Amino acid sequence: MPFPWEPRPTNVSAPVWRYSANPIILRDALPTSNSIFNSAAVKFGDGYAGVFRCDNTHREMRLHAGFSPDGLNWTIEPEPIVWNIPDAEVEAPEYGYDPRVVWIEDRYYVTWCNGFHGPTIGLGYTHDFKEFTMVENALLPYNRNGVLFPRRVDGRYLMLSRPSDRGHTPFGDIFLSQSEDLIHWGRHRFVMNPVEPWESTKIGAGPVPIETPEGWLLIYHGVLTSCSGYVYHWGAALLDLEQPWKVIARGRPYLMSPQRLYEQAGDVPNVVFPCAALHDEATGRLAIYYGGADTVTCVAFAQIDELVDWVKKHSA
Amino acid sequence: MPFPWEPRPTNVSAPVWRYSANPIILRDALPTSNSIFNSAAVKFGDGYAGVFRCDNTHREMRLHAGFSPDGLNWTIEPEPIVWNIPDAEVEAPEYGYDPRVVWIEDRYYVTWCNGFHGPTIGLGYTHDFKEFTMVENALLPYNRNGVLFPRRVDGRYLMLSRPSDRGHTPFGDIFLSQSEDLIHWGRHRFVMNPVEPWESTKIGAGPVPIETPEGWLLIYHGVLTSCSGYVYHWGAALLDLEQPWKVIARGRPYLMSPQRLYEQAGDVPNVVFPCAALHDEATGRLAIYYGGADTVTCVAFAQIDELVDWVKKHSA
Amino acid sequence: MPFPWEPRPTNVSAPVWRYSANPIILRDALPTSNSIFNSAAVKFGDGYAGVFRCDNTHREMRLHAGFSPDGLNWTIEPEPIVWNIPDAEVEAPEYGYDPRVVWIEDRYYVTWCNGFHGPTIGLGYTHDFKEFTMVENALLPYNRNGVLFPRRVDGRYLMLSRPSDRGHTPFGDIFLSQSEDLIHWGRHRFVMNPVEPWESTKIGAGPVPIETPEGWLLIYHGVLTSCSGYVYHWGAALLDLEQPWKVIARGRPYLMSPQRLYEQAGDVPNVVFPCAALHDEATGRLAIYYGGADTVTCVAFAQIDELVDWVKKHSA
Amino acid sequence: MPFPWEPRPTNVSAPVWRYSANPIILRDALPTSNSIFNSAAVKFGDGYAGVFRCDNTHREMRLHAGFSPDGLNWTIEPEPIVWNIPDAEVEAPEYGYDPRVVWIEDRYYVTWCNGFHGPTIGLGYTHDFKEFTMVENALLPYNRNGVLFPRRVDGRYLMLSRPSDRGHTPFGDIFLSQSEDLIHWGRHRFVMNPVEPWESTKIGAGPVPIETPEGWLLIYHGVLTSCSGYVYHWGAALLDLEQPWKVIARGRPYLMSPQRLYEQAGDVPNVVFPCAALHDEATGRLAIYYGGADTVTCVAFAQIDELVDWVKKHSA
Amino acid sequence: MPFPWEPRPTNVSAPVWRYSANPIILRDALPTSNSIFNSAAVKFGDGYAGVFRCDNTHREMRLHAGFSPDGLNWTIEPEPIVWNIPDAEVEAPEYGYDPRVVWIEDRYYVTWCNGFHGPTIGLGYTHDFKEFTMVENALLPYNRNGVLFPRRVDGRYLMLSRPSDRGHTPFGDIFLSQSEDLIHWGRHRFVMNPVEPWESTKIGAGPVPIETPEGWLLIYHGVLTSCSGYVYHWGAALLDLEQPWKVIARGRPYLMSPQRLYEQAGDVPNVVFPCAALHDEATGRLAIYYGGADTVTCVAFAQIDELVDWVKKHSA
Amino acid sequence: MPFPWEPRPTNVSAPVWRYSANPIILRDALPTSNSIFNSAAVKFGDGYAGVFRCDNTHREMRLHAGFSPDGLNWTIEPEPIVWNIPDAEVEAPEYGYDPRVVWIEDRYYVTWCNGFHGPTIGLGYTHDFKEFTMVENALLPYNRNGVLFPRRVDGRYLMLSRPSDRGHTPFGDIFLSQSEDLIHWGRHRFVMNPVEPWESTKIGAGPVPIETPEGWLLIYHGVLTSCSGYVYHWGAALLDLEQPWKVIARGRPYLMSPQRLYEQAGDVPNVVFPCAALHDEATGRLAIYYGGADTVTCVAFAQIDELVDWVKKHSA
Repeated sequence: MPFPWEPRPTNVSAPVWRYSANPIILRDALPTSNSIFNSAAVKFGDGYAGVFRCDNTHREMRLHAGFSPDGLNWTIEPEPIVWNIPDAEVEAPEYGYDPRVVWIEDRYYVTWCNGFHGPTIGLGYTHDFKEFTMVENALLPYNRNGVLFPRRVDGRYLMLSRPSDRGHTPFGDIFLSQSEDLIHWGRHRFVMNPVEPWESTKIGAGPVPIETPEGWLLIYHGVLTSCSGYVYHWGAALLDLEQPWKVIARGRPYLMSPQRLYEQAGDVPNVVFPCAALHDEATGRLAIYYGGADTVTCVAFAQIDELVDWVKKHSA
Repeated sequence: MPFPWEPRPTNVSAPVWRYSANPIILRDALPTSNSIFNSAAVKFGDGYAGVFRCDNTHREMRLHAGFSPDGLNWTIEPEPIVWNIPDAEVEAPEYGYDPRVVWIEDRYYVTWCNGFHGPTIGLGYTHDFKEFTMVENALLPYNRNGVLFPRRVDGRYLMLSRPSDRGHTPFGDIFLSQSEDLIHWGRHRFVMNPVEPWESTKIGAGPVPIETPEGWLLIYHGVLTSCSGYVYHWGAALLDLEQPWKVIARGRPYLMSPQRLYEQAGDVPNVVFPCAALHDEATGRLAIYYGGADTVTCVAFAQIDELVDWVKKHSA
Repeated sequence: MPFPWEPRPTNVSAPVWRYSANPIILRDALPTSNSIFNSAAVKFGDGYAGVFRCDNTHREMRLHAGFSPDGLNWTIEPEPIVWNIPDAEVEAPEYGYDPRVVWIEDRYYVTWCNGFHGPTIGLGYTHDFKEFTMVENALLPYNRNGVLFPRRVDGRYLMLSRPSDRGHTPFGDIFLSQSEDLIHWGRHRFVMNPVEPWESTKIGAGPVPIETPEGWLLIYHGVLTSCSGYVYHWGAALLDLEQPWKVIARGRPYLMSPQRLYEQAGDVPNVVFPCAALHDEATGRLAIYYGGADTVTCVAFAQIDELVDWVKKHSA
Repeated sequence: MPFPWEPRPTNVSAPVWRYSANPIILRDALPTSNSIFNSAAVKFGDGYAGVFRCDNTHREMRLHAGFSPDGLNWTIEPEPIVWNIPDAEVEAPEYGYDPRVVWIEDRYYVTWCNGFHGPTIGLGYTHDFKEFTMVENALLPYNRNGVLFPRRVDGRYLMLSRPSDRGHTPFGDIFLSQSEDLIHWGRHRFVMNPVEPWESTKIGAGPVPIETPEGWLLIYHGVLTSCSGYVYHWGAALLDLEQPWKVIARGRPYLMSPQRLYEQAGDVPNVVFPCAALHDEATGRLAIYYGGADTVTCVAFAQIDELVDWVKKHSA
Repeated sequence: MPFPWEPRPTNVSAPVWRYSANPIILRDALPTSNSIFNSAAVKFGDGYAGVFRCDNTHREMRLHAGFSPDGLNWTIEPEPIVWNIPDAEVEAPEYGYDPRVVWIEDRYYVTWCNGFHGPTIGLGYTHDFKEFTMVENALLPYNRNGVLFPRRVDGRYLMLSRPSDRGHTPFGDIFLSQSEDLIHWGRHRFVMNPVEPWESTKIGAGPVPIETPEGWLLIYHGVLTSCSGYVYHWGAALLDLEQPWKVIARGRPYLMSPQRLYEQAGDVPNVVFPCAALHDEATGRLAIYYGGADTVTCVAFAQIDELVDWVKKHSA
Repeated sequence: MPFPWEPRPTNVSAPVWRYSANPIILRDALPTSNSIFNSAAVKFGDGYAGVFRCDNTHREMRLHAGFSPDGLNWTIEPEPIVWNIPDAEVEAPEYGYDPRVVWIEDRYYVTWCNGFHGPTIGLGYTHDFKEFTMVENALLPYNRNGVLFPRRVDGRYLMLSRPSDRGHTPFGDIFLSQSEDLIHWGRHRFVMNPVEPWESTKIGAGPVPIETPEGWLLIYHGVLTSCSGYVYHWGAALLDLEQPWKVIARGRPYLMSPQRLYEQAGDVPNVVFPCAALHDEATGRLAIYYGGADTVTCVAFAQIDELVDWVKKHSA
């Protein structure tokens, strides 16, 4: 399984750098797609699989499965995921977007922004990225950016989320909720709110947190409101290993902002939005998947140890 | 224990009628109060007790306990409720308002709009209205109008709530959440959304639902937006006894709108907001406590059977 | 047929004065009414008839017929007007409000704010205030305050209107449209826009214009936006007899503003909204019907000649 | 007269495809132009003529005539159209934009968004694209996207329009109005409102409807509101031949969205806005003129029969 | 010169109490007035004089002089103040409202909200309340609530103001500016911003600060935004005698909120707005003039020493 | 000292033309910079110096000094300017942006948008672009675009400014203030407000006015609000030499609008924002520095005499 990777360009000193062949998935990779972005990749078998946000030419938001041998070249399933829903009281999704995927214990769990009389956090699982089963919505509307931790902490499943409103929410803090059964959630904790100008409108968790010896590495997006609308960036923080609602360190500058044309022009100009990260334990390499301009899928790279150092060094 | 009551005036045909001595609690009933309204009364001992929203002259929103021999004449405790919070990870309330109180099994539970990095549903209990203990916030922000059912249904505690935003939320549907331990909540169900003009902006549960042979009687408020702001009314619906997220019948007209000067003029003109209801099982009498103009506390009366009939008759 | 009248109080120097027994119709004059206001009265038989805006306790806006022997004591039909609609392509009203009624040639014409995928000007007629027939909507949405002239001018029917948007429109000028058949309208002319502070948000025609030797006397409402919402006043102007889109004179101050409690408190505080005027040719007396606080129906009085003089004297 | 055409690229399966040499008219094609877009071309003589929206460097919106031998290379008249206005009561345009041109019976009619105390639908005609005569505004303000049918239907002229407000209107349905004289309009019919996400904010008619055996082919634009503002797309529907306010079929996906840099960057990013279509009856070829980014003029191609089939196949 | 006074009612424990005959000036005290409120009274001769905000029935905002023998019964000049403006480059006021008057050194200075391409702080003076001279606007637009100190401090004139925007400004802090000539202003200092809920939208200086041994006593208004608009209250603070931009103590609760019908109903419901205060050095009595509901003029009373004690006691 | 210059391209007839190697400073010219734009250059020694707006990767707005031998190649100091503030009562800047620099009498003065409880006009000076001293804020918040004249006029220093609100201000006129000591400002004069569509939202002074025999040449920006946000242009006017608040002539069209990709795409699309201009007295050459897309620094060229002629010729 080749890990998706490209070494740091010699002229780049920043802790993350873009893949030179970005974007890796174009907007019309499917005959019916308007755009493919904000998507989640994980290791699967001897390659990679993922759940992709594919907006179709109705501009409906749909989740599709996809597969790749190398994490860079992807085959997207032409049909959206159809959720098997065992409990008749659970309503089928009105729409789905911004998925995250994580292996916990014995299966891949998918969380996504689910249309349930408004946006909230849908929860389901798959073993093979062919059959998908939806369980209960984890949280009440209106919520977005629900991200599970990759293991229980103190015996409880943990989920980050960003309570929202019904529209282009102009505010947003990150909270953490806890569960013993992945159905009922409580023990809600406040994690963090916007502090720096680049994130002054709202923040939201990005990829599944990555466990490091120094804490959970959380990559998250932050939004600034210019006179032309929102500008999305992303940065990183370290959360306490045992009480992950406690922020140990938080990189004050952003790590990435929209600076390439595929990030600056598209259905929503000036968006870089991370939803997944692969990491290679042997080498400490990190491949971060992010959407560009709400239109295409891109990759950036980093070394985990360098990123952790950067967060600690640039913390307030 | 005299039940608070006044017979229907002969010139009133509507199913609810106002107490002739309204308001029963004036805005300055405490030396430090700006207003006392949106308050919750229950039977207690050989009289009544309650939790009252008392905004002080800072315009801070505070909860106070209160006692009454007859449900009409109330003594409000001059100091706000101080919550005992056993779990150090639970944050003390930034503020509290719009309480509901309900006896379940062995104690009185209080839910209220709790300031936790935004409004959400706080949960606590008391045995004596002197000592109060706060447990976990039931739900994530941003939420208001959290109302517990008075018993478990199918083994689970049930809570209605109205997901909101951070401000004067211009939307709102009622959802139901379920819990096995009053800490973790899930199995969220959509209950109902605005339908009629009087409730076209938003709706929210009012008093604790009242169990009747024909269903749970739910009194709820509904808001219309005029060119001068919100106008609050209240109406009623019947929910299925076993699956209370299913609406059996819903009275299409409102039951009450702001028509008296103490409802039309005050800190927020044109508000009638119900938070509690006492009912007398022997006589079927109902005393509904509601706030007037976000300033004073009022009472209205009804017969439960007449009200149930009215809901069924005026359902779509 | 007694004309509704009360002489000017001795302490009033203004050209219009309120009826001392205002409001003449209370909000709950019907068992199903939330409010009765913004209504249109005309001479009919040996008394008076009219079309009334009755919002019911759904807060649905409905038109009802009504009758009066003296213009002050009214009997409102308990059921809303049911429109006979001969042309199957004309859609039945979604709602109706703010009616005007005028006798032209051989029948009473009714215009009102009609729900047709948004508010616009519905047009119908009656001979007896029992049978009502609806023809085509005169204008496209979004429009309000459509008012017919009482006779053809230069062979054409004339209608004033106030193009609007879908909500609580924050702008508004008065235009005039012309028709040869009351079905097709064109030759649109701009009449006037807000000038004075009391009308700075928007203006709209009130009662049917009254023909005087010096021009058409137009009473119209004007809205100012305070930090608590809209404040409705009314004033008057004189339009050219032959080219009524030309304003001859316009009284700069308002004639009436909300100063009584029945105008300041109610479903929409601070509204005086005129929709009809009776005049007695013999005496020059004028009885102006206006809504108070979007809740009740009121009357004010004036002498036409005094009012015309006032307009000319207070014109810019 | 060569028809503007380029065959479908082999890698395109969509029913419309862009001209490879887009944009065909650059923003500074006139010395005084800021942008030239949203323009209307028709067959004229042995070539083509048109009316073009040319915003000048004041950013004033002006209409200019233009001529082309082949529909692709255009010469724009440097001076704006000067309207001859026979009726002194008709006001000269304050501004003009988004023209449509159609041959009916004996002349070319022009409709445009006309500044008449707000935007509405101006109506005029020309025989030679040198002399232009303005008649009455067809409709009251506030309206945009007024489009005439190319022949009478059931003896009446027909116009589609999209009632609006005064600003960047955040709503919009398409209505149809009827006239016997092109001066007075009535018998207004509702045609359609936004349904799909790509058009969820508003829709508006584009080119003059094209008569096909299966109905009137209507190309129309639809707007979605992102967190950076409006995104304009276009799609197509079929209207009943005899009662064109009845929608027979409506393609649910969009046909075109902003995907090229000349559509994504410019004075208004993310706009494709169709205003005209030429069709060749012999070959069934269709050349659709559309504005890119409110800055330049572009062309796309289609086969009418394929487009009709697509609409029917993709209808709900 | 009788000082306007009424002893504290026995049932009032608050440090300020209303005059029992409020309002002292009714809205129609002038034949042309819509309302008279937010007005400034000072000692003058053997009685009192003042500058009054009189909105006329155009709803134009005008300043009028007025006189009173006892501070409670006022005669308002029927004509607005006409400003003598010696410098031709100074523009005449477009409008004037919310005046303050203060005796400094040798004359009465008037500051007011002056219409100069937007609201700002006009400055003028009078010796006799008959002749008024306007000098330069003290500050650039957009500003309101400009209040002079009654003497130089450290050799400089001082002015409080509340920078604003053009409309119903939804924010506002109090700043202090300094001048050596009453023409040029600089050395701007931040004084205070909203802290408590009752003032959470904005604050603004009220009457001319009153010098006490413990500091300058500043009465100021504070605004809270309810779902029906703004609610105005007033409170008090103590500023450092030598560096008055330093807040020594600040009463956290409000001193007065709209609780009487003449404060709750009127052109702007729920407004109490103080603009002037008379104090009697011998007795320490204070008479505070404030507007009610932007409609009438009212008075409240206090003892200065009690008020200073209250501020210190209720400071954070 | 070579003057930065490039002759007019032969195909350009407009009075200003872009430098062919734009942008001259890229967004990441500093390791810590997010963007460098809206910057001020002046002649200094035998080359040029300047103050640059460098937003860092926190998106904090900071001022940096910079130096250049030729006005085109710049070295930016890596650390922000640290202000020496002699007066302890003057608060250190919360942030700084959009600087202007001007030599007056004996030193370089810097004005900028200074964070002082909101944006206002900071004032400081330097002799060497190494040591910088801050004096008093010239004006109260909320203000932006403060620009000094390069000499006293009638003995007084003059400053243009654009009063604003706290956010993305949707309005704005240019005013002039006068001072005898650069500390206290008064004699405020209205200069001009938006007139043309390209500037219809707001205008603001750009570079320091350039004295010409025919008046002060003022280059200023103007903003139009599209449905995607603000579009920034710039134009020019001539102000009276002796009374510079009097506009002698004003070019009605814009001189420059965003037409290159480096102006259309970036952190704020569609911005050209001029902050400085160098002129060469011998040749009449003008080099105008402007920000592109709030991201990069650009240069355009003109001949002063041609520009003056253009203004006069295109004045209304």
